[in-house]
Amino acid sequence: MLNPVRLIEKKRDGGAHAPEEIHQLIGDFVAGRIADYQMSAWLMAAWLRGLDEQETWALTQALLHSGRVLRLQNVKRPKIDKHSTGGVGDKISICLAPAVAACGVAVPMISGRGLGHTGGTVDKLQAIPGYQCQLHPRRFEAVVRRTGVSMVGQSELLAPADRHLYALRDVTATVESIPLITASILSKKLAAGVDGLVLDVKFGRGAFMAGLGGARRLAQSLVAVGRRSGARVVALLTNMDAPIGRTIGNALEVREALEVLDNRGPEETRSLTLGLGIEMLQLAGITRSRDRARDRLERVLADGSAKRTFQAMVAAHGGDVRAVEDPERLPRARKRVAVASPGDGWVHSIDSKELGWIAVDLGAGRTRAEDDVDPGVGIELNRVVGEAATQDQPLAWLHVGKRADSRDLVRRAQKAFSVGPHRPRRRPRIRERIA
Amino acid sequence: MLNPVRLIEKKRDGGAHAPEEIHQLIGDFVAGRIADYQMSAWLMAAWLRGLDEQETWALTQALLHSGRVLRLQNVKRPKIDKHSTGGVGDKISICLAPAVAACGVAVPMISGRGLGHTGGTVDKLQAIPGYQCQLHPRRFEAVVRRTGVSMVGQSELLAPADRHLYALRDVTATVESIPLITASILSKKLAAGVDGLVLDVKFGRGAFMAGLGGARRLAQSLVAVGRRSGARVVALLTNMDAPIGRTIGNALEVREALEVLDNRGPEETRSLTLGLGIEMLQLAGITRSRDRARDRLERVLADGSAKRTFQAMVAAHGGDVRAVEDPERLPRARKRVAVASPGDGWVHSIDSKELGWIAVDLGAGRTRAEDDVDPGVGIELNRVVGEAATQDQPLAWLHVGKRADSRDLVRRAQKAFSVGPHRPRRRPRIRERIA
Repeated sequence: MLNPVRLIEKKRDGGAHAPEEIHQLIGDFVAGRIADYQMSAWLMAAWLRGLDEQETWALTQALLHSGRVLRLQNVKRPKIDKHSTGGVGDKISICLAPAVAACGVAVPMISGRGLGHTGGTVDKLQAIPGYQCQLHPRRFEAVVRRTGVSMVGQSELLAPADRHLYALRDVTATVESIPLITASILSKKLAAGVDGLVLDVKFGRGAFMAGLGGARRLAQSLVAVGRRSGARVVALLTNMDAPIGRTIGNALEVREALEVLDNRGPEETRSLTLGLGIEMLQLAGITRSRDRARDRLERVLADGSAKRTFQAMVAAHGGDVRAVEDPERLPRARKRVAVASPGDGWVHSIDSKELGWIAVDLGAGRTRAEDDVDPGVGIELNRVVGEAATQDQPLAWLHVGKRADSRDLVRRAQKAFSVGPHRPRRRPRIRERIA
Repeated sequence: MLNPVRLIEKKRDGGAHAPEEIHQLIGDFVAGRIADYQMSAWLMAAWLRGLDEQETWALTQALLHSGRVLRLQNVKRPKIDKHSTGGVGDKISICLAPAVAACGVAVPMISGRGLGHTGGTVDKLQAIPGYQCQLHPRRFEAVVRRTGVSMVGQSELLAPADRHLYALRDVTATVESIPLITASILSKKLAAGVDGLVLDVKFGRGAFMAGLGGARRLAQSLVAVGRRSGARVVALLTNMDAPIGRTIGNALEVREALEVLDNRGPEETRSLTLGLGIEMLQLAGITRSRDRARDRLERVLADGSAKRTFQAMVAAHGGDVRAVEDPERLPRARKRVAVASPGDGWVHSIDSKELGWIAVDLGAGRTRAEDDVDPGVGIELNRVVGEAATQDQPLAWLHVGKRADSRDLVRRAQKAFSVGPHRPRRRPRIRERIA
């Protein structure tokens, strides 16, 4: 057994830890034998020196086994989850999970709350009155078994060491490290007992990893370490320069996801749902053919079974099913303020990061973990990249609640759009697949 | 004002801090606005990324001004101190400081306690019954004014931020960093109000910095940052492969220093005292000539004035002057155990680090800050490098107290000597001078 200082020293000097050393480090940290100030020194050394694949795998395992590991033995279907590294306007999980479940896959999905400019699925679902995101593991398993899908928030029982470690990373500038992110994501997901995982790794302006290169390395790390941990893993690299679909904000995004489940909705939101869904069906072994997977997903959206699956899940979580049937019952902001176009032309880009922060300032997100969110507020895009902008039509509407000074936000929103004289080329969201 | 996470991030990414940022960092740390776990992440980033000269200077200033800064305005003589980076058998301060004071220099000396294999001057002085190492700054100044020299331990009032920072570095593997060491040493020394500082930077087996290259970089950093802080600074690089002189252990080393003050003592201890003393007299402006400085020091050793200065200082610190007049009154170990030579030949090397640890195991030093030391125990070398070893004469004696199992220690001590068939070349201790 090395003492903590020797472990820190080893990483500081660029050494590679044996798996036992990583387990000792995390075990001692959880047990309080390694102080926070020692862990943060190790984290900074790991941030700067890196962790190799074996170390990252050992860290994942150590975090994973720091708490309860669900087996979901009563769920007989293949269990596949999706994880996104965080986007702006990313409501895909809400339409994707029930659609995939309606195709015969079990989706035990554990999601985060929003922090900073990216939203969290948990906040979005909680825009549905009564929706309960904290289920006991037994209840979670029962809901997955009965409806094929359960979408919950992070549990105190799963991978608790990751939560402690993340809290420390957040205040010590050690968040943006590919191996540390890899272990954090995988430990939480694997603790939920999944057989496979589809990763939506974002890059671009609104993403955590702005560069395609960094996002690719993260995706490769997630796929490699996920497989080494015994899960089937595939990753898609998707562009986050502009917000996804046409809404940003909790109830607004639920509404858009419901449109997709009603076989309508913005083309982009639908196609991203299908793209990720195809991967999930393939990982589940439902079919090997991409075309058959797509047909299957289109069918459950068209015949209403995806929507019914969502309704059943909402009911099982104590949510108000009438709000799902009639989205007018979802929370709404007090007023809607138009964001005018500065001129005529074409929308070339929309700064998703800036819109994400405007949504936070409207009250849709949080800058500190303890902030409350306002479910009704947000941004509705009237024009997206590649569409014509005219001065007589707003680019967007801000859905404003009590908190915000809308004048300044409208100005900032207008600046987030860039309008040019030529029609821009539209590029697909999904740029690469890493398997 | 940057928030703490931005400051950590900046150093993590290899940026250079503005002086205000360093002052903010240390100020916020002292005020509790930066947590220990944030400071340790910054320290690790600084360890790995380095600090440039301006940052090191700013850190020195920030630590220095975290507490009281003595001016010693009532001391009219030039105030020069010496600092050693820590050696084995290094009792030089005890004979050097009074000798230099006897030449007309004021020596306000603040020393550390021993930790690990290197001893501390404070522990050595406290082998003199009654010697008080904690003086209030006013009393410290008065003793320097009256006797020309006061040797005390570190004060809670001077550079308190350095003490907190050092405690954190000690448990987070961030000690061995040239800029961090530079700021730590200089802030404490400059807080004592010195005009100049002679640095004895050790290298070799028993030194903190084993390599000559590292020791040289540390010396250069200390000289550059010390000057930028307005002090006259010179550094000597001295070899620590073998212990200094013929004794290791608190009372034993005081005895050896007293021999030097009596114009006797091992040649090596005397010559190192003269070498460092010459630099101190030159920095003080007593003379520009090395020869005149040497003459002056030899005179105060020969005429007893150095010894009388020491006696006056011991008396001013409440110490038993009779123990200085008659070293038989100093504490003694219960028994003396011989370390036999394995054969006939010449002593080629003595592993000073190993002997340092044996002295710790005998009870002369500490492995933890809260340990007590036994003043009487230690090691007396009968043969040093370059001398003949014969089987009928011990290489050394261990002075053993209650604590130790001497058999194992005798074996280890024997192994620390390497005896060969040819007479080795003796090299001087002082290898380079950096000014």
